[in-house]
Order: sequence, then C-alpha cells, then structure tokens
Amino acid sequence: MTITYFEDFQVGQRSTTGSVTVTAEEIKAFAGAYDPQVFHLDENAAQDTFFEGLCASGWHTAALVMGLLVRGDILGGTPLIGASVDHLRWPMPTRPGDTLTATAEVIEKRESRSRPDRGILRIAVTATNQDGGVVEMFESAVVVPRRVPSD
Amino acid sequence: MTITYFEDFQVGQRSTTGSVTVTAEEIKAFAGAYDPQVFHLDENAAQDTFFEGLCASGWHTAALVMGLLVRGDILGGTPLIGASVDHLRWPMPTRPGDTLTATAEVIEKRESRSRPDRGILRIAVTATNQDGGVVEMFESAVVVPRRVPSD
Repeated sequence: MTITYFEDFQVGQRSTTGSVTVTAEEIKAFAGAYDPQVFHLDENAAQDTFFEGLCASGWHTAALVMGLLVRGDILGGTPLIGASVDHLRWPMPTRPGDTLTATAEVIEKRESRSRPDRGILRIAVTATNQDGGVVEMFESAVVVPRRVPSD
Repeated sequence: MTITYFEDFQVGQRSTTGSVTVTAEEIKAFAGAYDPQVFHLDENAAQDTFFEGLCASGWHTAALVMGLLVRGDILGGTPLIGASVDHLRWPMPTRPGDTLTATAEVIEKRESRSRPDRGILRIAVTATNQDGGVVEMFESAVVVPRRVPSD
C-alpha cells in the first residue's frame, strides 16, 4: 500500500469525504453507552430540554466525522493519527436522519522538532448536514511520515 | 430532580468520577464503526504500527470519558452540555484492559452575554489509566442555568 509523505502535502489542499446518515436508533445506542442524557435517549422527553428534540451526543458526531475522514482516506494512504484537537465546536446538533459530509483542509505544515522522520500537518475539518448546516468544526494536528534523507 | 445553578459553582472545585474498564472487543467494535484503522482493529497487525499494539481510537477514549463525566454527575444534576472543547490531547493511548477514571475542575465561570438565564463554566478534564498515565486531557465550555433574577 502506498502512503503520502509530509513533503507531498500542500497547504490549502482540500478533500471532501463521502457521507453517512445517522438514525435515531444509532443516536440512542451510542448515548446509552457513552452519553446517557435524556436529550440523546428519548424523543419525547427530549422535547422539553435545551435541544428541543432528540439529537446525537457531540462525541457521537465527532466519531461519525472521524469515520468519514478515515473512509474518505483524506491523507492518501497515510494513517490518520491525531496528536491533538483544538477549537472543537458543534454549531448545531446532529438530528435523527441527518446525512453528514466532511471537508478537510491542510492549513499548516511543519517538521517535527524531535523526530526527523515525522512532520505535523494542521488540518481544519468542517462537517455539514444535508442542508449545509455546520454540525462540527475542529482543527487537528496530525502526525505524518517524512521521507528519510538519503545522506 | 434538583439541579445545580451557575451561582453555586466555584472556581477550583473538583470532582472525580467512577471508573470504566475497556476491553479489546469494545475497542475493535468502536473502531469498526467509527475509526477503522489497523491499530484499532487487529492486535497482530497493530504491532508494526506507530502505536506498537492495539489501542483505542482517541474518539473512543473521548466517548468513554464523557460516559464517566455523565455517570459521575459532575455538575450535580445539571445536564452536561458542552459548547466547545479545546486543547484536547491524548498523551498516551488507551490499551485493552485499561481502567479509566476522570477528574473535572471548574477553572473559570462567566455569565452569558446574550442570555441572562445562562452561564458558562470552563472545566478542565483529565483522564488517567490504572497506572496514573494520562490518556486524555481537554478543556470544555459548558452551558449551565442561572437563577433568573426575581425583579
């Protein structure tokens, strides 16, 4: 399997993933395991909450978006290893039946200070629903391999 | 059910959650759904990767920690609604059999500029494994209700 090296990435390059549709059942199953709050578990009881209806845990949205990025192979064969995430926001919730798509843009690249065989890309990710509403945004520093100098 | 209001939280207050133990099977199931990369899916193949063995997706660790925070009721009956997350780091990976525990500290509080019935707490979360190794750190701004002024 070929991979893409640090030297091959360009600041400004963008890729768009495929899509994923989330069901009420999946929202409730994820919440039962990882975020058991009423607005993620019960359509009726959720009506009277901050969210005014059932919605996915923000961490569920984050997991769905990671699935899009991995399956969309946004780094061209290079594993997607996030060292950190910043500015993670959920401008609007993911609702049952929503179809999500993500876009990733390389916004910065730098060589690793400690490891000559690695570089760090900063990527900005935006995920939208079928209406163009933004359900998640974040920036992540990802570790990618450099070509080892030949001398 | 009683809730805790913005006015009742103190900067510096800390709470510690219960614990959760993660199995290899759960790591692989989560990864199959949300982060299908070899170091989260296959013990043997993971040996030859960056992580030198099977480990949980960072988003799986994040979901497990959210479960600890919710079940630990760190806001005293008030729903845990994160508006944003910053400085999310995974200093070391979560491994099969690890038992995670989280601590949350209120590090800042401010009134909402736009909504007199809401306040924002900034909390710092640290999650450790059974050996005290830090598997996740982040800061989150959470929305909590204020007591509505009586006049």
